[in-house]
Amino acid sequence: MPVRRCRTTVSWAPMTHAPDHLTLADIARHLDITFEGDADQPIRGLATLKEATPDQVAFLANRAYLKDLATTQAAAVLLHPEHAKHCPVPRLEIENPYLGYAHLSQLFDPLPARDKPGIHSTAVVAPGVTLGKNVSIQAHAVVEEGVTLGDDVVVGAGSVIGADCIIGERTRLHANVTVCHGVVIGKRAILQSGCVIGGDGFGFAHDGEGWHKIAQLGGVVLGDDVEVGSCSSIDRGALGDTVIGDDVKIDSQVQIAHNVTIGAHSALAGCVGIAGSTKVGKHCMLGGGVGLSGHLTLCDGVQVTGMSLVTNSIHKPGVYSSGTGAMGNTQWRKNAVRFKQLDDIAKRLSRLEKNTGDT
Amino acid sequence: MPVRRCRTTVSWAPMTHAPDHLTLADIARHLDITFEGDADQPIRGLATLKEATPDQVAFLANRAYLKDLATTQAAAVLLHPEHAKHCPVPRLEIENPYLGYAHLSQLFDPLPARDKPGIHSTAVVAPGVTLGKNVSIQAHAVVEEGVTLGDDVVVGAGSVIGADCIIGERTRLHANVTVCHGVVIGKRAILQSGCVIGGDGFGFAHDGEGWHKIAQLGGVVLGDDVEVGSCSSIDRGALGDTVIGDDVKIDSQVQIAHNVTIGAHSALAGCVGIAGSTKVGKHCMLGGGVGLSGHLTLCDGVQVTGMSLVTNSIHKPGVYSSGTGAMGNTQWRKNAVRFKQLDDIAKRLSRLEKNTGDT
Amino acid sequence: MPVRRCRTTVSWAPMTHAPDHLTLADIARHLDITFEGDADQPIRGLATLKEATPDQVAFLANRAYLKDLATTQAAAVLLHPEHAKHCPVPRLEIENPYLGYAHLSQLFDPLPARDKPGIHSTAVVAPGVTLGKNVSIQAHAVVEEGVTLGDDVVVGAGSVIGADCIIGERTRLHANVTVCHGVVIGKRAILQSGCVIGGDGFGFAHDGEGWHKIAQLGGVVLGDDVEVGSCSSIDRGALGDTVIGDDVKIDSQVQIAHNVTIGAHSALAGCVGIAGSTKVGKHCMLGGGVGLSGHLTLCDGVQVTGMSLVTNSIHKPGVYSSGTGAMGNTQWRKNAVRFKQLDDIAKRLSRLEKNTGDT
Repeated sequence: MPVRRCRTTVSWAPMTHAPDHLTLADIARHLDITFEGDADQPIRGLATLKEATPDQVAFLANRAYLKDLATTQAAAVLLHPEHAKHCPVPRLEIENPYLGYAHLSQLFDPLPARDKPGIHSTAVVAPGVTLGKNVSIQAHAVVEEGVTLGDDVVVGAGSVIGADCIIGERTRLHANVTVCHGVVIGKRAILQSGCVIGGDGFGFAHDGEGWHKIAQLGGVVLGDDVEVGSCSSIDRGALGDTVIGDDVKIDSQVQIAHNVTIGAHSALAGCVGIAGSTKVGKHCMLGGGVGLSGHLTLCDGVQVTGMSLVTNSIHKPGVYSSGTGAMGNTQWRKNAVRFKQLDDIAKRLSRLEKNTGDT
Repeated sequence: MPVRRCRTTVSWAPMTHAPDHLTLADIARHLDITFEGDADQPIRGLATLKEATPDQVAFLANRAYLKDLATTQAAAVLLHPEHAKHCPVPRLEIENPYLGYAHLSQLFDPLPARDKPGIHSTAVVAPGVTLGKNVSIQAHAVVEEGVTLGDDVVVGAGSVIGADCIIGERTRLHANVTVCHGVVIGKRAILQSGCVIGGDGFGFAHDGEGWHKIAQLGGVVLGDDVEVGSCSSIDRGALGDTVIGDDVKIDSQVQIAHNVTIGAHSALAGCVGIAGSTKVGKHCMLGGGVGLSGHLTLCDGVQVTGMSLVTNSIHKPGVYSSGTGAMGNTQWRKNAVRFKQLDDIAKRLSRLEKNTGDT
Repeated sequence: MPVRRCRTTVSWAPMTHAPDHLTLADIARHLDITFEGDADQPIRGLATLKEATPDQVAFLANRAYLKDLATTQAAAVLLHPEHAKHCPVPRLEIENPYLGYAHLSQLFDPLPARDKPGIHSTAVVAPGVTLGKNVSIQAHAVVEEGVTLGDDVVVGAGSVIGADCIIGERTRLHANVTVCHGVVIGKRAILQSGCVIGGDGFGFAHDGEGWHKIAQLGGVVLGDDVEVGSCSSIDRGALGDTVIGDDVKIDSQVQIAHNVTIGAHSALAGCVGIAGSTKVGKHCMLGGGVGLSGHLTLCDGVQVTGMSLVTNSIHKPGVYSSGTGAMGNTQWRKNAVRFKQLDDIAKRLSRLEKNTGDT
C-alpha cells in the first residue's frame, strides 16, 4: 500500500464530499460582493497567492505578501480595494480580506456535509434525554440521563456527555470529547477531540497530615460561540461555576481551573494555565504557555505575551510580559548565574554611586 | 430550546439525584458535633457566607471573609469557636472549618448516588477478569484480560483498562480514562476524564543517525487515595515502575515521565512537568507549570512556586522559585535585553569597584 | 482483594504472555553477536546491573554504572568490548550497548504477542474502508469512511479514525487515540493513548468586535517511525498541512500548532508547545516545556534546553537556553525585583563609568 507522504496541493477538498461545483459567482454571492470575471469559473479550494492554482481563490490580507500578487495563478483574489490595481486576475474587493477568507473557508469545510442526523445504532442515549431537531449522535457516543441537546447538535464518535448537561443548538463535539455532569454549553460551540469540560477542580483540605477531597459541586458554563482545543481541560467549580464567556477561543492543551471566569471575546493560545478563581476580562489575549496565578483579576483588554507568568492582578489594558528570550547556552549560563547575584549587584552599584558622589 | 446561560444559585444539587432531604441534624451528625438550632431545617447545599440561602450551610475558613459573617443568610455556619460570638445564625463549631467543609461537601456530591453496580450491556469485559462486589462498569468501557477490580470500583463510560491491571476498592475512573496494561492502582483513587496512566515513557537509543525505540517494560504503581486530573499523563517505567505514593494529588494537564517517584501526600498543580527518574519527596507542593529536570532528588517538604524550573536536586525543605514576574511589555523589553548583558554588567561593576578603590 | 503496592522485580514480563522461554542464545542471535556461556540459560527480562537477577540480562551503557558491574547477578551483560575484562558473568560485547538494549527490549514487550488480527465485534468500521493484512481493530474502535489501513495496523480500543485517513503498515494506535479526518500517517508510527492528530488549528479572523472561525482545511502528515506521546495534540493546517518528518519522536503533553513543520529525526520532550507555521529542522532536540513562537525557522541541529522560550529564528546549530534556575524563594524575591530595574541599573553603570573616566 503506497502511503502518500506529502501532498502537492494545499487543499484536500477533492478527497472529500465537500462541494466541488462552487463557481466564482457562488463565492462572490457568499461574500455579498460584486466582481468582474467568469462567473462560471469552478472554484475547488482556497490557497495562498503563491500556491493557488487556477481553480482556487487566494487572498491578500497582509502587505508582506503583496510581492506574490503579480504572479498569482489564482482564479480570483480577495483583497482590499487599495490593492485592486495590482491584481492580474479577477478581484474580489472587500474591506477586510482576512475576514472574507474566514467566511469563504466555511464553504470548503467537508465536515458539515458529512453529518448524518440521527442516533448511531451503537450510541447509548439514556431514556428521557431531550433532543432537538437534526441532532447527530455518532458511533459509541454516550449521552447520560437528563441531558438536553439543542437543534443540529453533533456528538462525535466516542464522546461522553454526563447527566443533566444542557448543550445549545449547532454545538459540535468532535470525537472522544468528555463533558461531565451538569455542564451548560451555549450555541455554536466547538469542542475539539480529547478535551474535558467539567472534570473536578483541584480542591483539598489538609488536616496536618494529608489531604481530604472537597467535592466539586459547581459546574461549568460555556457561552455561545466558544471553541475549546484538543486535550484542553476546563474544571468544574468548587461551589459556584467556572464561566467561559461568549466567543471565547481556547486553543489546545489549555488548563482552566475551578471557578475561573473568562470574559467574552478573549483568546487563549496553546498550553495556557489559569489557576483557581482568577477572573480574566473581555477581549483579553493570552499567548502560548502563559500562566496566571489564582485569585487574580485581569481587566478587559489585557494581552500577555508567550510563557509569561502573572502573579498580580492587572488593572490597566496593555501588553504584559515576563521571562527572557533564548540565547546561546554558554552566554546564557554566565548571565543566569549573575541573575542570582542581581540584588547584590544593585546594592553594590548604589554604594559605588554614593561613594563616588554620583547620585 | 432555551439554554440557561448563567446560574443564579451556586449549588446545582437540585438538578440532580443528590439527597435533598438532609437536615441540619444530619449535617451535624456527619461532622460529629453538637449545635443549637432547628434540627429539622432542610439543607440543600453548601455556599459561601455571602451567597448562601436559608437552606444552605456556609463556612468561615479564612479571616478575609469575616466581614460577610454578620449578614449571612445561611441556615448555619461552620466556623472556629473563636468566631462563634459574631455568628447571627446557628453555628457548627469546629476546629478546622475548611476540613469540615471538605467532609460536608461529600454529602452533596451527586455522583455516588447515581452509580449503578453492574456491567453495562455495551461494556466489553474480557473473560476471566476478577471483579469485586458492586463494581460498576459503564457504557462502552473496555476491561481487558487478566484485570482485577476491587469492590465498589467504578469504570466510567468509554474508559479502557489494559491487560493485567490491578485496581483497588472504591477507585473511580471517570469517563474516557485510559489505564494501560500492567498498571497497579490503590484504593479510593480518582482518575479524572482523559487522563492516561501507563503510556510509554520517552526512551530511545540513537545510532548516530536516528532513533530506536526502547520498549517500556516497567509499569506504573499508584498508591491509595491518589487523584489524577483531567488529561494528565503518567508514563510507564522503562525497566522499573513509575511510583506515585499514597494520597498524592495531581491536577490537570500534568506530565509525569517514566520512573519518576512521588512521595506520599505531595500535591502537583496544573501543567507541572517532571522528567524521567526524578524523585520527589513526601509532602512536597509543586505550583502550576513547574518543571523538574530528570534524575533529580527533591527532599521531603519542598515547595516550588508556579512556573519555576528546577535543574538541580534540592536537599533542604523550603520554598524555591525561578523566573520573573510580568510587567509592562515596554519596560520588559528593555530589561530583557539587559539580561543578555548581565555577565558583562557584573564584570564592569567589579572593575569599577576596583578602579575606584571601592571593594 | 490484596492490591500489590510495590513490585519487587523490575520486569513485569512474568505477568504477561510475553515469551518466557527465551534463552541466552536467542538473545545473542537477536543481536547477531557471539558469546561464551550457557546457551540454554533462560532469560526472562532486562534489568539494570544492580537489580538484575540470574535470569535477566543487564547492560552497561554509561560509565557511571561501571561500579555495579563487578557485583552484578545478571545472567549476562551487554557491554562495550573495552569493559569486557571487568565482567564477572557472560558477556554480550557490542559497540553501542544502549542501542543493543533498545533492540533487546523489543523482545520483552508483551503487547505484540497479544494483538489479535481481526475486527472486534463492537468496532464500527465504515463500508468501503481499505484494510491491509492482519489489521487489528479492537473493541469500540471507530473507523470512518474512506480510510486506508496498511498491513499489521493496530487500532486500540476506543480509538477513532476520521474519514479519508491513510495509515501506513505496522502503525499502532493505542487505546482512546483520535485521528481526525484526512490525516496521513506513515509506517511503524506509534500513537500513545489520548493523543489527538488533526484537531482544528487555532485560526480566527477578528472583525473589530469578535472572532470568526477560519475552517482548517489542511491536514496533518506524519512520516514513518513517528511516535506521539499520550495526550499530545498535533493540529491540522489552515490551508497546507502540518508536517512531521520521519523518525520524529514526540513526548506526552506536547502541542504542535497548525502548519508547523518538524524535520526528520528531531525529538520533542514533554510539554513542548510550538506555535503556528514554525519550522523546526532535522536532528533538533527540544527540552521539556520549551516554547517556540510562531513563524520561526530553527535550522538543523538546534537543541533548546528545558522551559526556554524562543521568539526569534535560529540559524546556527548549537544549544540555546532562556530563563533562570530555581533558588530559595527569599533570595529569588530580591533578585526578581531587581530584574525590573535592570535597564536602569545598566544605565546607571554606564553613567558611572563615564563620570569616573572608566570606559
